[in-house]
This record gives sequence, structure tokens and C-alpha cells, in this order.
Amino acid sequence: MATSSSLALTPSKTKFFPSPSPSLNSPLSPRCTFLPFPSSNPTPKSLIVSSSLDRNSPSSHRRPLYTPNHIPDPNYVRVFDTTLRDGEQSPGATLTSKEKLDIARQLSKLGFDIIEAGFPAASEDDFEALKTIAKEVGNGVDENGYVPVICVFFNCNEKGIKRAWEAVKYAKRPRIHTCIATSEIHIKYKLRRSKEEVLDITRNMVRFARSLGCDDVEFSLEDAGRSDREFLYEILGEVIKAGATSLNIPHTVGITMPSEFGQLIADIKANTQGIENIIISTHCQNDLGLSTANTIAGACAGARKGEVAINSIGTRAGNASMEEVVMALKCCGGLYTGINTQHIVMASKMVEEYTGLHVQLHRAIVGANAFAHESGIHQDGMLKYKGTYEIISPKNIMLERSSEAGYILGKLR
Amino acid sequence: MATSSSLALTPSKTKFFPSPSPSLNSPLSPRCTFLPFPSSNPTPKSLIVSSSLDRNSPSSHRRPLYTPNHIPDPNYVRVFDTTLRDGEQSPGATLTSKEKLDIARQLSKLGFDIIEAGFPAASEDDFEALKTIAKEVGNGVDENGYVPVICVFFNCNEKGIKRAWEAVKYAKRPRIHTCIATSEIHIKYKLRRSKEEVLDITRNMVRFARSLGCDDVEFSLEDAGRSDREFLYEILGEVIKAGATSLNIPHTVGITMPSEFGQLIADIKANTQGIENIIISTHCQNDLGLSTANTIAGACAGARKGEVAINSIGTRAGNASMEEVVMALKCCGGLYTGINTQHIVMASKMVEEYTGLHVQLHRAIVGANAFAHESGIHQDGMLKYKGTYEIISPKNIMLERSSEAGYILGKLR
Repeated sequence: MATSSSLALTPSKTKFFPSPSPSLNSPLSPRCTFLPFPSSNPTPKSLIVSSSLDRNSPSSHRRPLYTPNHIPDPNYVRVFDTTLRDGEQSPGATLTSKEKLDIARQLSKLGFDIIEAGFPAASEDDFEALKTIAKEVGNGVDENGYVPVICVFFNCNEKGIKRAWEAVKYAKRPRIHTCIATSEIHIKYKLRRSKEEVLDITRNMVRFARSLGCDDVEFSLEDAGRSDREFLYEILGEVIKAGATSLNIPHTVGITMPSEFGQLIADIKANTQGIENIIISTHCQNDLGLSTANTIAGACAGARKGEVAINSIGTRAGNASMEEVVMALKCCGGLYTGINTQHIVMASKMVEEYTGLHVQLHRAIVGANAFAHESGIHQDGMLKYKGTYEIISPKNIMLERSSEAGYILGKLR
Repeated sequence: MATSSSLALTPSKTKFFPSPSPSLNSPLSPRCTFLPFPSSNPTPKSLIVSSSLDRNSPSSHRRPLYTPNHIPDPNYVRVFDTTLRDGEQSPGATLTSKEKLDIARQLSKLGFDIIEAGFPAASEDDFEALKTIAKEVGNGVDENGYVPVICVFFNCNEKGIKRAWEAVKYAKRPRIHTCIATSEIHIKYKLRRSKEEVLDITRNMVRFARSLGCDDVEFSLEDAGRSDREFLYEILGEVIKAGATSLNIPHTVGITMPSEFGQLIADIKANTQGIENIIISTHCQNDLGLSTANTIAGACAGARKGEVAINSIGTRAGNASMEEVVMALKCCGGLYTGINTQHIVMASKMVEEYTGLHVQLHRAIVGANAFAHESGIHQDGMLKYKGTYEIISPKNIMLERSSEAGYILGKLR
């Protein structure tokens, strides 16, 4: 089996490494879907979140019907939220059951395809919170037929998976998510097992999850970014045969560069038996500040599910940021998601308040300064035409400007 | 002239879109220069910045001698700090002259090749602060002959450039930096000039800066990421002929994806007359969270100077993060910088305190949680072997662990 595929053969409609597009050179480029700005912006008193929540679809695309292992539209990318699982594992971010339910409701308003609602091994409270979310949020079908998949993460053993199913089975669309590490470094030092044992556990646990009646099983290969390619292809092929519906490729330690991570996804797509019957997913940690770029690179190479967290919270330096990934895909064009961007700021503020993980002022998209302009040169441009310095209208995420120009005063010394 | 170059022809030694490397699959990969960790970590009381400042070089490479428009080693990437210019233009981040001098001293300890010390048009105080930095920090030659270039940014007109020179000429290595916008959207709406006028201004202002006696002139093409390729090649060729030593390609609005930005740099390198006589530089804004990835993509495509800011502060969502770019290049291998990573945390804390722009707990590298582990699975791995979940030793940036394992307790409910 080849260890590397040619990117030119990647069947995705989206170019992985696109040539320069003439559209980039146009001031009203179709890549920049938010321009031009309306010339008659209202002038509210401050930069605030609007209280009116628009439930209209954020794009002209319609979300494809949900089938666990298939997406009818090849350009649709599912968005999976892990704020309540990996996000809650941030030091100090422990949430109460009530807070978890509030956040899950907000995630449903945002339109996440899949909500990973927790890791109920952590405590009995966590188990009950997950069950409540599965029962309520996991059955809240809206007028368009949308209801989020509720996913539960658990250790890769029969006891754990059985417990996971007990918590999540009440959802209309329940999913069990489990994982095993596949890199040499993890197998040798952490698992202390042989590759054959890892393969056996994987096959058996996916089959066991399916045997419980769960028809939506996600399997993650921890530290896939540092794993041997041939072993990845082999174990993924076995996972597919055993009945998993989604294969998750975590970039557990955040060291892979975007071009390398895209190549990894392209290689997996080209070399794994049965890959056409499953959804490839990515889960990128942010240790070098590259998680958004890696998630985008993965999507461009064929992943059709991106795992993200609100405000990018998560273990160590966190996960890929929901707001960055979603807005980058929106600006990038070609691919689309079902996220209603009008709810981004509200979700960001809720998660910030409940977890105590404050977002910095200059954080992209949701930071207080993200749409503020102090430089005189920039203020001049903004006064003449907002497209000179903004690629996203704050209105797209339900922010309103403090003034029509959007600038703040500079130095007054 | 061609509008696109083949990446396969890019003369850089670094592969722009590398094929999967076998080294990635090794638990002790040479890409991961910080592993393995020493097994005898000390056990200090808290995760603190060490007070002993090690001035040893952070890598086995020696910094090449400084010539404005040439770097003898093709793998060396200059790092340019804009904390005191673009960073200080963050809303609310105004610094006193004393604070600027303190930061400039710390930037010199870090070993930045170039320190952009301000925009002295803003006020008389800014002018005097810049002059002081040029006199003191710009003449602080260390035992290895290193002294930072002190750069001043000014509007692109004779009066401005003359004023810039008055402030910066006291440095041993002074640089003038000016810019003009080149995208259709900026030329039409902001400058309200023709392309020919833009070309004329550019030529004349570079020549004027050189005529003052300044032999190190940087010219930026604002909004280059949205500019017409052919116009970019033309204006860059003129800038080189007029005597500039560094061409800066700003990604002013942050919309370009890393693969596209890398392609832009590769195209400029392949299609601009005289490009071999000049240093290509990048300056990436973070509006979509992609500034680090774009800077890395630019370096991989041939840029040999990256403009960054401490803690990624800057206008709107900020600039490329110094700590992410430097550590990513260090982890990535192939290219190297002259930055002494032992001073990163101290610089981060100083800029945070002086500007009031707090960094979030889960910020990569310098956030309080960046090396903390709460998940039980991760704690298990860390106790067995730290390389399972960490790609950088905290010691590389002068942090020490709160315990040998580096974990913190999980839930106690």
C-alpha cells in the first residue's frame, strides 16, 4: 500500500492547495462573502450583543439530512462541539449540571451537527447531566427537522461503553465516542501493549458499542498525527469493518503543520479500505497556535467533520476554535457548515462566564477589540469604506458598532 | 510574466508542502527537538518563571552577520518585532516612554533581529521615546556582536520619512519602514489615486529615504493579500530598483488561507525582478486565527523575515504571535531563528502588564494552562512519559513545573 497519495488525485471538489484565484484580486471577491457592507448602518450606543435572536439559516445552503456515515452534499462539513467534554477538562473549568444544560441549549441554537455532551466517567453528576441533555436537547427537533446528535465520550472498555450508552440512549440521535492511542510513543509508554492488542481492543469495542443498539459510533485514534501511516490505514480499515460511522483523527499534541496535517487526511482518504463508507473527522489541539489552520487543512483535504470548542477552550492550550473555523470556512467559500453565526457571540459569552476562562481582548471574532480600529490610517479607511479593513461584518455574529465608522479614538496626548 | 509559479520550482531548501516524513512516525522524531525530557525534573512549589536568565544561544546555529538585504544562511529567518508599533495601536494599549524602553530592552534580550520601536507621528513623546530606544538599545552591542536593528514606521511622504530618520538615525543599525496600499479596494476607496500615482509615490519615497543616508529601508505593500498579482510584481520590482532592502507583504485583513498565502510568497519570489537582492518579509493579521499558520507558510515559501508581536497584540485581533511562530519554527525544523526562547515568558508577562492586554489562560505557550493537564487519561500518560502529551518542555521557555508530573488534580466530587 502506498504511504503517500498525490493531492492532485484527491477527489474533493475543494482544492487542497489551490492556485492563486483571480477572485482574490477583486475588491468584491466572492471569497469574501460578507462584503460589501450596507451603507446605512444603524448607530447604536455601544458595541453590544443584540438581544434579538435570528433563527434564520446563516447561509443559502440547506443542511443535508443526517445519516451517521454519509453526507449527501460533498461540500457540507459537519461541526462537532466538544466544549462540554474536552473543553470542560480545562483546568478550573468545571461546570454545574445546570450550566451544562444551558450551554447545550445554546449549542443547539448554533446548529451544531453533533454535541459531545460530556465524559460521564468523571462523576455521577456528570452522568445525570448528560442524560438530561440527551433527553431534552437531544429531542428538541426544530421546524426544519434539525436535532443535534448527542455524543458521549467514554474509555475504551466494555464497562465504560455500556455506561456511555446508558446516559446517551435517550437522545433521538445518540452517538458513542471512544478512542485508543495509535502512536508508537503512546502505545509503548502509556498503553504498554502491542499493536496487535490495540487492534483487537479496537475491533471488539466498536462491535460492542454497535451490539448495544447504538448505530452511530465514533472512533478516535489518539495521537494520530504522530502515528505510523501504515498502522493508521490498517486500524482504520478494521474500525470501519467493525461498524464505526465516524473516524476521528486527533492532532493530540499540536505539533503537525497545516500542510502536513492536510496531507495526513489526504493519505488516509486515499489508502484506507472502506473509507468511502464513513465520515473522516479532525480534532486539533492548539499547542502551537495552529489548530484552526489544521482543521481547515483537514477539511480541504477531505475531512467532513471538524471538532471544535467555543472560545477554543480545552486541555492545555485548547482545541480548534469554533468561531475561527466556522468563519474561516464561511470566508473561504467552497465548503459550508450548518452553524448559525448569529449565535456565536452569545455562546462565547456564556462559556466565558460559566467556565471562568476569559477570552483576551484581541481574540479573533469574539474579542472586544476584534472589530475596533485605533490606528489613524485604519480609521481613515473605515470612514471611507469598511471593506478596506474588515472582512466580516460584526452583524454576522450579532454585534453592533459603537459608531458607524467603527473606530475608537486614538491618542490624545 | 506568469501569474503563478510552480511550487516544485521554488528554490528554497525547505519544502513548502512537504510529503509525509518518516521522522514524524518516530517517538523521538528530530522534528520534535525538545524530546526526550530529562527524568530528573526539580519539584518547585509552583509553576513560575525562573529568575535566572540564561543568555546562552537557544540553538546550535549561530546568527548570521547582519547585512540589510542579504542573509548568508538560507535557512535563517529574521524575526521582526512590532509590539511597540502595531501592538501599541491596540485599543487601550498605550505605553509610557519608560515602558517602551523596558520592553525594547527585553526584546533585545530575546534577540530580535529588528525592533520596530514605534510610530513617532503619534505624539512628541512617541518621537522622544523612539530616539531614546535608538540611542540605548540600538547601540547595545553584546559579546557576540549582536545589536538589534531599530526600525521606525512612518507615513509615506517626505515630511514623515524625514521625521522618522531624525528619530532613528542614532541607532547603530537604523531602518526606515514605510508603506502604501496596493489592493484595488484600498487604492480606489482609501487612497483615491491611480496605480501610476501609487507607483510614483513608492519609487520617490524609497529613493528619498535612501538619500537621507539610511541604507536599510523596508517597504510594505498594504493589503498585499488582496492585491492584483501583476501589479504586485511591478511595484515590488520598482521598490527594489529604488533601493529598498526589505519587501514586506502584509496580510492586512487576515482573510487569506495559509496555502494561498504561501503561494503568494512563492509567486512573488518567482516573478519579481531583482527579488534575489532583497529580503521578503511577512506581516499577518489574525482576524480568522490564521496569522501563525500564514507566517509559517510564508517562511516555508521563501520569506526570510516574519513580523510578529509579543502575545500577538495588535490592531483588531492582533498580529502573528512571536511565541507561536518561533516555537513552531523550532519544532518544525529546517529553518531557524535567533530568538532566545528562555526570555519568552518574561517578555509575555511584561507586555501583558504594561499594555493591560491580558492573555487567556489557555493561550498557547504562554498561557497559565498551556502546560497543565487535568484529564485522567493525560495525567496517566504524563506520569509515565512526558513526551506522550507535550511537544515542548516548559524549561525551554523558562517555566518550571508545579510537580514532576505536571498535572493538576481533576474533579473531587
